[in-house]
Amino acid sequence: MAHHNLDNIDTSEYPHINRGLDGIVAFSTTKSSIDGQKGELIYSGYNIDVLAEKATFEEVCFLLWNDRLPNKSELDELKNELISQRNLPKPVLEYIKTTNKNAEPMAVLRTAVSMLSDFETENSGDKAKDSRKHAIAMTAQIPAIIAAFDRSRKGKKIVSPLKEGSTAYNFLYMLNGEKPGDAAEKTMDLCLILHAEHGMNASTFTARTICATESDMFSAVTGAIGALKGPLHGGANTAVMNTLLELEKEGDSADAVAFTKKKLENKEKIMGFGHRVYKTFDPRAFHLRKMSKKLSEETGHEKLYEWSEDMMKTMKDEKDIDPNVDFFSATVYYSIGIQPDLFTCIFTMSRVSGWSAHYIEQSENNRLVRPRALYIGEKNLEWTPVEKR
Amino acid sequence: MAHHNLDNIDTSEYPHINRGLDGIVAFSTTKSSIDGQKGELIYSGYNIDVLAEKATFEEVCFLLWNDRLPNKSELDELKNELISQRNLPKPVLEYIKTTNKNAEPMAVLRTAVSMLSDFETENSGDKAKDSRKHAIAMTAQIPAIIAAFDRSRKGKKIVSPLKEGSTAYNFLYMLNGEKPGDAAEKTMDLCLILHAEHGMNASTFTARTICATESDMFSAVTGAIGALKGPLHGGANTAVMNTLLELEKEGDSADAVAFTKKKLENKEKIMGFGHRVYKTFDPRAFHLRKMSKKLSEETGHEKLYEWSEDMMKTMKDEKDIDPNVDFFSATVYYSIGIQPDLFTCIFTMSRVSGWSAHYIEQSENNRLVRPRALYIGEKNLEWTPVEKR
Repeated sequence: MAHHNLDNIDTSEYPHINRGLDGIVAFSTTKSSIDGQKGELIYSGYNIDVLAEKATFEEVCFLLWNDRLPNKSELDELKNELISQRNLPKPVLEYIKTTNKNAEPMAVLRTAVSMLSDFETENSGDKAKDSRKHAIAMTAQIPAIIAAFDRSRKGKKIVSPLKEGSTAYNFLYMLNGEKPGDAAEKTMDLCLILHAEHGMNASTFTARTICATESDMFSAVTGAIGALKGPLHGGANTAVMNTLLELEKEGDSADAVAFTKKKLENKEKIMGFGHRVYKTFDPRAFHLRKMSKKLSEETGHEKLYEWSEDMMKTMKDEKDIDPNVDFFSATVYYSIGIQPDLFTCIFTMSRVSGWSAHYIEQSENNRLVRPRALYIGEKNLEWTPVEKR
Repeated sequence: MAHHNLDNIDTSEYPHINRGLDGIVAFSTTKSSIDGQKGELIYSGYNIDVLAEKATFEEVCFLLWNDRLPNKSELDELKNELISQRNLPKPVLEYIKTTNKNAEPMAVLRTAVSMLSDFETENSGDKAKDSRKHAIAMTAQIPAIIAAFDRSRKGKKIVSPLKEGSTAYNFLYMLNGEKPGDAAEKTMDLCLILHAEHGMNASTFTARTICATESDMFSAVTGAIGALKGPLHGGANTAVMNTLLELEKEGDSADAVAFTKKKLENKEKIMGFGHRVYKTFDPRAFHLRKMSKKLSEETGHEKLYEWSEDMMKTMKDEKDIDPNVDFFSATVYYSIGIQPDLFTCIFTMSRVSGWSAHYIEQSENNRLVRPRALYIGEKNLEWTPVEKR
């Protein structure tokens, strides 16, 4: 009799099985460091608190790709290259306009990013140069894809990208059809910085595994988008927002403490809390919380912020669990007019910088990634002709 | 000073780093067993030699998805479902017709498979049922994508799929625009059987890692195509064929023994030999070799077969390395009229059955796949304003 899953087998017989690859160190990296006990996050040498206060998203991209900050002319060059790459190839726009309006935004993004590679024909033969070019192309075009699909599915005219302004500014312009204010641009930029890179999560690991076959960067990022799309990975902030919108339906007098307690009693999973790595307050959540407070006051969404605080306190009291990055990013995105089913796409718009940085790093010192599987089925069964089965 | 790659660090300090995840067992599986010492390959209980002799590709699909062979009515049902799913959605056909004719076929396949998901809107809520439906849809539509792109880039009219016949028969019909003979159909079918499944290779591992975030099967297969596209993984048979075509240029008197020895002397890599798992003759290569001999006689490509044999003997004499699955599949595909830059696509057409089988297996007993990376960069660097860098 064959065993049918690992729960049925005597694991003392197979002490070397590690289903989640927990604790297995598969790579070295200079891209990010996470200290889950201290609640510390570092991107290529710089603490996230410093970057949140001082950097722009474009500087963070350069930092992750090069392991150092750009000087003025390098930064200007990068900004100009990003601006020059914002237009989508015509077949990509055609696809966005003609596909099923009810398609999942992350699925459309995965397809459109994959399609971009058909128009990147001039491979120089210099891998490092091509990698840089492809990273810039995807970082510039992903915001255009997201905005174009969102407008197209709503029957609105697609807005062409600006020939100026930051990635954050141009994205909000393409999404909403009007130029954003300073506060909205700063908020968007900070969100892009906070989500850019985060160690060996499932999507980054996917990107490196694909890269390790010597496949191209579009393949690696397309695969990573597929992984980020999963509810156990990038989908959590959408779920957080949907929870807060449930409260909104109850009106201004909704009681978030009672609501949270009831969910806990019913053993419902409450999204946006706890993390496989952080055992304390996620440093990204700290910045997002501050921003959420400020924005909620400015935009009249105070109630959403108050409920978030109440949920947070209740989770701490009842379960001793802290919020993660997804918890406050939900209200922040919502406050600047982004609807919940685009949240994971916004995450992608930022994280493409980290994925491409890991692609570059893996290419420089590559080894095929290929763990093993233990066969627990039958062997050498006898063939029975189809008529006798 | 930060370390910049694992070669520079003292690995005795980090004994737990495993860059390729070599020997780490990450999953249990009932899908395939490979004994590299014996040269034995088993799919869900059945030896590949038995399947090569007795089975059809459709039976192998059912076997991999269900861990048992179908009875007559189950097999008929599956065949009918595959036939009914062969037509591509219109936007997918539009994309294939309008994209860059010089795009890589594997890149187009990756995009088109990703796009299929936009038209799979009726999720039943029953994961197992949806998985089965998606596996059938992709297995039915991937051949149509490959054939349509190949004809489109050559300026030929795209051929609509048949409402009858096997996957192999219909594919050759769509590709060439005429119904294939018995020998070509049998050859194609055997190739599909031999490439269907092969343990925890890089693309299958990618598919399971994406699945483990609870993402959909289209995401997992799209990512797997990206991994298979890499020259270290699926691209080898194209390279084998290009080597044989180099010989062909020298004319019928070309000396494959001298040619191989010269390459060895020049330390050039000769594709199609050796394998990370098999330490003896790859059982798939045995079947492909037999078929290659037969086909070369029938189609007048005897010289290609003779050169293959000469190369094989020279590699054995000089290096004691046996051919792998890619070596003879190259001449087999070439003999039935498939051009070298489609070989990896044909591999995909078959392997989608194995990837989807692993997706089903992972979904039934899931755990997020998330190894770690060791940070070897600087920490807490001080910020310098851009003007001062």
